[in-house]
Parts: sequence; C-alpha cells; structure tokens
Amino acid sequence: MSVSTAASVQGICAPLPVLGSDVTVPLVTGGEVTYAALDYAASAPALQRVWDDVAAYAPYYGSVHRGAGYLSQLSTDLFENARGTVAEFLDCRDGDQLVFTRSTTDSLNLLAAALPADCQVFVFETEHHASLLPWRNARVTYLNAPRTPRQAVRTLERALADRTASIQEGHGPALVCVTGASNVTGELWPVRELAAAAHAHGARIVLDAAQLAPHHPVSVRDLDVDWVAFSGHKLYAPFGSGVLAGRADWLRAAEPYLAGGGASRKVSRREDGGVDVEWHDSAARHEAGSPNVIGAYSIASACKALTEAGFDALVAREEHLIRKVRAGLADVPEVRVLSLFGDEAPRVGVISFVVDGWNSSHFAAALSAEYGIGVRDGLFCAHPLVRTLLGSDPQSQGECGAPEAAPGEKSLNAIRVSFGAGTPDEHVERFVHAVRELVADGARWSYRTEDGRCVPDTSA
Amino acid sequence: MSVSTAASVQGICAPLPVLGSDVTVPLVTGGEVTYAALDYAASAPALQRVWDDVAAYAPYYGSVHRGAGYLSQLSTDLFENARGTVAEFLDCRDGDQLVFTRSTTDSLNLLAAALPADCQVFVFETEHHASLLPWRNARVTYLNAPRTPRQAVRTLERALADRTASIQEGHGPALVCVTGASNVTGELWPVRELAAAAHAHGARIVLDAAQLAPHHPVSVRDLDVDWVAFSGHKLYAPFGSGVLAGRADWLRAAEPYLAGGGASRKVSRREDGGVDVEWHDSAARHEAGSPNVIGAYSIASACKALTEAGFDALVAREEHLIRKVRAGLADVPEVRVLSLFGDEAPRVGVISFVVDGWNSSHFAAALSAEYGIGVRDGLFCAHPLVRTLLGSDPQSQGECGAPEAAPGEKSLNAIRVSFGAGTPDEHVERFVHAVRELVADGARWSYRTEDGRCVPDTSA
Repeated sequence: MSVSTAASVQGICAPLPVLGSDVTVPLVTGGEVTYAALDYAASAPALQRVWDDVAAYAPYYGSVHRGAGYLSQLSTDLFENARGTVAEFLDCRDGDQLVFTRSTTDSLNLLAAALPADCQVFVFETEHHASLLPWRNARVTYLNAPRTPRQAVRTLERALADRTASIQEGHGPALVCVTGASNVTGELWPVRELAAAAHAHGARIVLDAAQLAPHHPVSVRDLDVDWVAFSGHKLYAPFGSGVLAGRADWLRAAEPYLAGGGASRKVSRREDGGVDVEWHDSAARHEAGSPNVIGAYSIASACKALTEAGFDALVAREEHLIRKVRAGLADVPEVRVLSLFGDEAPRVGVISFVVDGWNSSHFAAALSAEYGIGVRDGLFCAHPLVRTLLGSDPQSQGECGAPEAAPGEKSLNAIRVSFGAGTPDEHVERFVHAVRELVADGARWSYRTEDGRCVPDTSA
Repeated sequence: MSVSTAASVQGICAPLPVLGSDVTVPLVTGGEVTYAALDYAASAPALQRVWDDVAAYAPYYGSVHRGAGYLSQLSTDLFENARGTVAEFLDCRDGDQLVFTRSTTDSLNLLAAALPADCQVFVFETEHHASLLPWRNARVTYLNAPRTPRQAVRTLERALADRTASIQEGHGPALVCVTGASNVTGELWPVRELAAAAHAHGARIVLDAAQLAPHHPVSVRDLDVDWVAFSGHKLYAPFGSGVLAGRADWLRAAEPYLAGGGASRKVSRREDGGVDVEWHDSAARHEAGSPNVIGAYSIASACKALTEAGFDALVAREEHLIRKVRAGLADVPEVRVLSLFGDEAPRVGVISFVVDGWNSSHFAAALSAEYGIGVRDGLFCAHPLVRTLLGSDPQSQGECGAPEAAPGEKSLNAIRVSFGAGTPDEHVERFVHAVRELVADGARWSYRTEDGRCVPDTSA
C-alpha cells in the first residue's frame, strides 16, 4: 500500500501528534500494522499535548474549592482558568456562563432541565439522539429532514411562524436545537441562518457542536447562538468532561441540575423539620459534587493546542483528507456515500457509506481484521436520519441501534469513516486502498457474529 | 520536626505510593517543604498504580460500543471488565446493576430520579449535602442527629414505625439514605443495623460510601444494603467517575437518567410526527453519551490496588495514623475535636476540630503557608451537622458554606484533617507539631481575606 506523509504534500501542515499513533495491532491474515484510528467522530485520540499537560499536572492534583493547601489553591485556579480558556475558545459573550458537564449528552440534558415552563422545542429529525431526545419535559416539534441548507432554514421558519400564528395571546419561550456538523454525513448546517430565523421569531437556539468544534472554529458571538454544547472526548481530550456555554438567565433561574455540595451556598434545618437551601447563581449551581478537574483542564489544553495550531491550517489539512477519501470512494461504483445536502456541501471529516452487496458490519470487521483500520458501523445514534438516508427500516437493533445481520445479508446499517487533526495521510490512503480491494476481491477471511459483534471466524 | 517512616513502625505497612508525594511547595516564611496532602476526604491523590494503568492504557484508548476497530473492541472490553471488577470489589449480588456515574453526588441524584412514585425518603440531617439534598421529588423525613449509633437505629426505627402506623391501606415504597462514614467526624455509622431496620419496615436503603470505600471494605451483600454509591476521586482515581451499584428493579423501571445515544436501543419517527424510543434495560439505560472509559478503568484499577494491598493492612495503618493525630490533638487543650458518637467510636481518617481563639480559615491558612500542610476549613458540605457540632449558626457563607470571617474573629467553621492509604507518618507528625506550635506561639505571618480565601498578607 502506498505511504506518504502530510509533510510531503504542498502547503498542507503535518498532523498534530496524538497518543497511539505508533500502536500496532495484529491482522487476522498474519503480521501487525500500525492502527489507523478512523472513528474520530465517536472518540478521538488524545492530543500528545493534552496528555503531556495532564501528566504534568497530575502530581499537583488537589481538592478544589475550600481546600486551604497549596495544591488545592493551585487546582482551584487551574479549574477556573480552564473555564476562562474554554470560554475564550468559544468566543463567549460577557455574561455568558460556562458549565463543565460530562459530555454533550449531559450538556443538552442540563439545558433541557433548565427550560422555562411551557417551552416549545424545535428539532430536526436528523439530529443525533443526544440532541433529539433530551427534551422530555417540553412540547417538541420534530422537523422533517431537509434536502438543502436553505430548505432547513425555510422549514424552521415555517414551523416557528406556525407557532406564532397559533398562539393567540403572545407566545411563550421556544428553543431550537441544531447540530453544527452532522455526525452521519459530516455536512455543515447553516447555523448562523438558523440562529437568525430563531431570533426573528422570538426563539432561542442551542448549537450541538460535538462534531463541529473539533474541526472548525466556533464563535458563539459570530454565530449568534444562545448556547453551545460539546464533548472533550471528541476534541482530543478523553477525560470525561463536556461543556455547556451560553446565556446565563435560564441557567440561573433553573433548579440546580444536580442537588448536592458545591451547588449549595447555605443549607439549614427549618423549625418545621424541613430543610432550606440557598443555591449558587454561578456555574457552580449546575456543577454539584467535586468537579472533574483533570477533565476540565484537558479540554482547556485541547482548546489551546487547536488555537495555536490554527484552524486555517487544520481545516486545509482536513479538506485535503476529505478530498482523498471522497475521490477514493467515488472510484468504487459499489459504494454509495450518504448525503443530505449533496456533493458540493461543505463538510467535516465524517463520511458514511454503504457498499452494494455487503453487510456493513461485515465490511467494517474486515477493514479492522485485515487492514488494521478502525471505523464504525451502525446507525450512529441518529436512527431517523440514517433510516431516511438508507431508505430502509431496520428491524433488528443492537447497541446504539446497529442491526445484527449475518454476513452477506442486505445492508441495513452503514459504515462511517471519520478523522481529524491527528490523522496522517497514510491512514486515509490505506482506507481507500482497502475499500477498493475488499470490493474487488472480497474478504480474505470469514466472519461470524458473536455477542452482537461481527468478528473473524477463527474456529476453523 | 521529627521524621519517621511507616516502615519503621512495628507491624504497620508502608503507605501506598501516590502521585505528588515528592512535590515541594514554598513556605511564606522561606524555603520549601514536601507537600503534606491532608485533605483526602475531599479528594485523594491518585495511586501511582492507578496512574500507571491509565498511562499504559491511554495510547490504546478508542471509541467504545459500536466501534469496529481493534482499539474500540479493546476499550469496550476494558470498560465492561471495569464494571465487573468494581462489582466484585463491592461484593455485589447476582442481578445487581452497576452504573458508572460522575461522582457520588451524581449517583445519588440518579437514584433520586429513579424512585418509584410516592416514595418516602428518610435521611439524617447529619448527611453530606450529596445525600441530604437529591430527594427533590420525594417526601423527605429529616431525622435529627443521633448521639450514639444505637440512637441512630432507634431514631430510624421510630420514624419507619410512625410511617407504617400512619398509612391505612398498606404502605408505599420508602428509601433510607445513610452515610457509611461521616465526612465531618470520620465516625462509622451502623450500616448493617440500619439496613436491618429499614428492611424490617419494608423500606430500602442506599449507602453513601464516599468516605467509607477508600478506607474499609464494603460488601453490599454482607451489609445487606440495596444500593451503594461512591466516587473515584476519593478512592485514589481522580478521573471524573463514580459508581451506583445495587438492585436492578427500580433502575430498570425508571426513565433513563439522561436521554441520548447509548441509552436508546431504537428511535423512530411516528406517523403523527412524534418520536418513539425503546430504551435499554441494562446499566446502559442510565449511561447515555460516550462513557468515561478512563474514569471507569481508573476506579477498577484502584479497586484492584486496594484489594491487593489488603484492607486489613490498610486499616491497621490508618488506625495507627488516627491514634497519632488524636493523641496529638488531645495534648492541646485549646483544640476541640468534633464528634457525634464520642471518643471510643470507630472511625476513618477524617477528623474535624476547632481551636479556641482561632478563626478556622486563619488556622488552615497558616498550616498551609507556614508548614506546607493542606487541610480544609469550612462546613464541609454538611451544614446542619457542623452547625449542630459547633453549636453555632454561621451567618456569612462562602463557597460550600465556609464563612469569610476576618482572622482573629470567633470561629464559625471548622478545620478538617483527613488522610488515607498514601499518607506517610511524617505528614501527620508534621501536622501535630504544627498545631501545637501555632497554638503555643501564634502564626508567624499575618493573613488577610482575598476573594473568599484566607491568604498570607504579602503586601507589607
């Protein structure tokens, strides 16, 4: 297989150093290869810089907040400075709050728990389940999958206008939740235009930036979104933290997300035997319990590393990789790339596809076992979108929705390849080569399903 | 100051190696000393073994669940094996579920969200806010502070009997929440007896083991508790994870704690435009979002390390340290140790006290700045208990309830010293020496309050 390095490509920067880039894995066909991590959209490897920062801090780790010791004060400062660094990375407005959560899912569940009474939520059916499902206590309007960015804006405008028209005496609060980049197609959504539409109709908007923030700069101010949510583990900082940042008013008015220490300012028994609680108004209100200092610090470290590398260079490099993958897949007629917005739509390094005549789980297993390539198969926690794109309705469902079909059956799910700042050219070149070879020659090994996973059959 | 090592003490094992044991910190009076981390009850340093395990795994980190790649499968196995290791550490019953959360606070909030309708909760006012406050959607009976373990059991029995008597037609579900070891006094609570009382009255019981699990073995089976909750960061694994383990029935019947991917088995649009969701029945039901693999793995690593070191040896060593600290404090008449259950009560290495004539924040700041010792001052997120023990009602409150009184004012809060498996004798010896010296000679430096912290006044 051909090997080249990014540095050899004119004008394209080298990949950022990440952990695991020299890890080798065994092939079922014999020998070992370096592992090609092409599942960044699920979890990206840690940046070496992030790991180095965490390792340098770890001996200085101490209890935060009321600890009187030197390391406690150092850790408290580190934690609060991380908040500032991430707020700067997101270009937050004065007065915005930044809450450290455990993930994008957690961030959106926090916002869902903070919605004002009678809030109406608008969300496209094309969203990841993390943005589709948290609005359990609100009236939710699910919007059909648009086929162009323009249609997305029009669909939202129409739904918001219908709402305004149907409410006789003024209208209550409303929230739009939208992804910045699809976790299935990688396509960018018209966030700025959707935000303008939301605001024009008196609604607010939260941006699910889980798939956007690792690839493109996100400015809360420029996009004019009310909140943004993202995860550390997709941003090269896999230490269990996420972020919700934005308008303070709804967050301040809401019941604390978790009840416990840290969120409570004063707790006292009442004469009648009950308990009175005064809660904090700051971000601490929604951060009860000891904060994940290492998690927060690792996100701040990643934000600094990406900013220093420069998004212009990172985007240029990623677009170079996207072109390679798309050109490679376009050369194989059996491959169908899934897309809502068409070939010309701007996108990040997340590409899903199916292969005629192949079960996707089988194909993904062969990429792993025969080429040392890690991709993902399934419905990617975005079932309605993937069903729309596949034009099928899978009956059997595994973890996170992946059907457990036997090798050779019609594909009911898809394969996703995704990459980012740490991906060398060789990984995507190997992937394109492997797809071509598998389609042309078939798998060299046989596979079977075990515990819901498609694995090489080594029983022979 | 005298220096001895644990190894020199007959029959007492050496401390377990922890990160940061060679970190030096500057003294305001000049020079540097190794940092004495004596705030384990807030957050303990990472065991070296835990760090080594995390560092060895980090390059192999991969997306879990549907990732088809080698590292994804390795990471998925590692995550699920961690679940098994921790369940074994807790001596869980067949059929128990173990959910990875982010902290004890999160675990108890999860259980609170999973309570059956009309559940009545019984909780002593002496609990940490994490176990006192989460029961927001239940009827809560707050029980007065008992003065003996026996009184605790009688108080609970009486309250449960009153409940049974007051309900005419059968009785609904009830839950008792109790700490295993107080985060203020370190005293052990009669968990087995409280569990028996709860069950005798048809109630269930959850054990807050945040302060117990790092110090003593916890057997869900032997204690006969229905659930147990604890945090990694107090168990030498500060990577943002916690645990809730126990009976599956309430957890399976409850709405998912967070809504999102991972918790959902199948999501589909309905004809009427809505969305149908099938949720998992396993622990995944309450673990939506990408799991904190490193956090879960670090807890499993700590469980293994503690089990291998042996709790008999760890407890013997800790009791040796407790005797040293208590004997040292008893020698200083100005010191009053806070206690509910009296001098003879069994306890873990968590001791709170006040010093006549000293503001606690001032005292804690002097321990840090002049001796390199990190303790904690405040109300320790257990306001009603500390007020009961102090016999005072602080008016001003800082973060987590610590009053911001000027140095020299009457103490409205307390000082807490806490230690564990990584604490060398020298740390507690230095602490005892420092307390004696500060009380006898006063602080050598002056202090002022800045941003709610008591800090050395270096403006002179």
